[in-house]
Amino acid sequence: MKRTSRDIRTANRYHLLRQAIADSPVSRAALAEATGLSPATVATLVGELIELGMLVEAGFEDSGGGRPRGLLAVNAGGGALIGVDVAETYVHVEVVDLALRVLGRAHEELAPEDGAPARLVRRIAGAVRVATGRAAAEGRVLGAGISMPGMVDREGGVSVFAANWDWREVPLLALLAEHLPHRLYLDNPMRACMVAELWFGAARGREDAVVVNLGTGVGTGLAIGGALHRGVSNSAGEWGHTTLVLDGRPCHCGRRGCVETYVGAPGIMRTLRELDPRSPLLVGGDQTATVAALADALDRGDPTATAVLRRTADCLGAAVGDLVNLLDPEVIVLTGWVTRRLGDRLLDAVRGAVAWHALPRPSAGAEIVLSPIGANPVSLGAATFALEGALASNGRAGG
Amino acid sequence: MKRTSRDIRTANRYHLLRQAIADSPVSRAALAEATGLSPATVATLVGELIELGMLVEAGFEDSGGGRPRGLLAVNAGGGALIGVDVAETYVHVEVVDLALRVLGRAHEELAPEDGAPARLVRRIAGAVRVATGRAAAEGRVLGAGISMPGMVDREGGVSVFAANWDWREVPLLALLAEHLPHRLYLDNPMRACMVAELWFGAARGREDAVVVNLGTGVGTGLAIGGALHRGVSNSAGEWGHTTLVLDGRPCHCGRRGCVETYVGAPGIMRTLRELDPRSPLLVGGDQTATVAALADALDRGDPTATAVLRRTADCLGAAVGDLVNLLDPEVIVLTGWVTRRLGDRLLDAVRGAVAWHALPRPSAGAEIVLSPIGANPVSLGAATFALEGALASNGRAGG
Repeated sequence: MKRTSRDIRTANRYHLLRQAIADSPVSRAALAEATGLSPATVATLVGELIELGMLVEAGFEDSGGGRPRGLLAVNAGGGALIGVDVAETYVHVEVVDLALRVLGRAHEELAPEDGAPARLVRRIAGAVRVATGRAAAEGRVLGAGISMPGMVDREGGVSVFAANWDWREVPLLALLAEHLPHRLYLDNPMRACMVAELWFGAARGREDAVVVNLGTGVGTGLAIGGALHRGVSNSAGEWGHTTLVLDGRPCHCGRRGCVETYVGAPGIMRTLRELDPRSPLLVGGDQTATVAALADALDRGDPTATAVLRRTADCLGAAVGDLVNLLDPEVIVLTGWVTRRLGDRLLDAVRGAVAWHALPRPSAGAEIVLSPIGANPVSLGAATFALEGALASNGRAGG
Repeated sequence: MKRTSRDIRTANRYHLLRQAIADSPVSRAALAEATGLSPATVATLVGELIELGMLVEAGFEDSGGGRPRGLLAVNAGGGALIGVDVAETYVHVEVVDLALRVLGRAHEELAPEDGAPARLVRRIAGAVRVATGRAAAEGRVLGAGISMPGMVDREGGVSVFAANWDWREVPLLALLAEHLPHRLYLDNPMRACMVAELWFGAARGREDAVVVNLGTGVGTGLAIGGALHRGVSNSAGEWGHTTLVLDGRPCHCGRRGCVETYVGAPGIMRTLRELDPRSPLLVGGDQTATVAALADALDRGDPTATAVLRRTADCLGAAVGDLVNLLDPEVIVLTGWVTRRLGDRLLDAVRGAVAWHALPRPSAGAEIVLSPIGANPVSLGAATFALEGALASNGRAGG
């Protein structure tokens, strides 16, 4: 267990820049007040971030009779960040500046045959080139974060396991480096969502937070002490295969009763089929269309849709309540395409179910919210990995 | 989210003293190597800990031709720590020195009528006086840690909720302070077990660890990044009421299917009754006697006892596997009186079940062990809270 002074410096840089992005323009005194760091530490860190081109001096504010105080702002032109969200069916790339303005985008559909490693690498590199071309990023690119489905070995740059493509131990970063000149950072979508919420979303300024992602699969990202919790093998947050019902519904993982089989999109469809095998809401086998039909049916008070929501929220409330009891977080952030589609109705039902399932004390401490981040938190989070990488690797010592 | 330079200093003190206790006598160079702290930081921290009377110079070691290196040792006489384990049926007090030698003990049974706050406070204070009298602690007492069942508000010194005594919001520390002259620290047994493992047990030197306590109730203590994880309302680790079987066995908490109803002592007894309602292993309603009978029956290969162990381990494996997937810890430490009684047989069965239930990557990273700490990790952990308190509150600035 080695936590070096370098780690502490990096953590302080994250902490300060996050606050500066949130409050820009802001004085050094306000940053010290907001972060709890000493004025001397703030002065040192601000100097480093100016040198790195991430902050700039931005005029003065009146300080009520005293000497006018210098203000700092995020240097939008200080560098571009590339965020890549690779999913089973698409590659989505966003290029953003340090003020989070989107400079360029690319979105390309993937065919099943694109899942071969060499081919997928070419598709990713091509999409990145399109997006950076559109961005016409004059400044330097600080790095590119790539979110891959499945499990990744971040240090080795290896996609350890991607179920749908039957990938095992693919040296993804080494392959990508042959096509792209940027510093590359690899991680998975759950952790990308969590860092996006930590830097720019509902977990900003919070110590302990959980992002719950509901899509075809389900999973979580965890933040403890204001930082992403990775675990010893960089796989923390694997929540989809938590046992909710011992010997319950069969799961593609080979076990039974996993939470994913109740609250992932296929699980929600199964609940609907159990309630009404001939429901017109079941749009073929199409998950997206069925969840959309369910959302519309909820809007018109359809009783079957209401029952599906209630059952789903009850399962989710039990499982999220267990997270609340175990981790006692300040905030639970719901995200993912199923969450975005069902919105406030899902939120209300889940809040009620968690209040019933969780113990009163941790339940009272945990806010449950929808993610405030727009359409693609994963690519934003991937770009954030590149930002964190730039903050960790650059420094006065040139390291 | 304020992490001040004071917090960092305190964390570094914990980190360094923990290592020094483990390796005593030890050189500054070895401490820097083992902790990852810079030699300058180690020198400063060692100076502070010598000033606080916790470390002493202890001769020199040869450094292979160079200047002989000064060695540091824990100053056993530097202060006594009092650890109090309050349970529903007893008060157990241990007084230890900084080298963890037990200087004095007291153990007193509680009757149901002792559960009234004023009466319990007198019983606790009496037991502490007996133990310190036996300890004849010449040195100063650095503080007393008190572990209380149920939920506690640590900052306010309030026992928020103790189910068996129907306590709500009892200002325990204020009441105790009328009887005891020591600095007092309040927390619960799960967190006491976790800090004991972090400082002196199986979690020493680990970043992320979970203590799983199996007794009448069950619960966990969590360590993330080498430090106890408390959560926003100091109630993190409430794992006993995690849903293992939706709509399963009824629980005294009012919900159903909680993990406690399957792997706590009463849950194990219920499994035994389900398998054989007239089993001679069911020693009346006595949990302790039944678990002891079960352990003996396992030793002679009794098929019913073997089946009970298998079912219990399967439930525990699913629930612990979920913790492994979610938190991706380096080590899971099994503790509590049921664990101590069933020992290696339980460990082997749980290891097998976790390997089946958890995902391969986090499962490969997580060692599962029995606690190496002797009879009462709770009182040791409570004493550790007093040690941590002394490290956090004393300093050069006299704060």
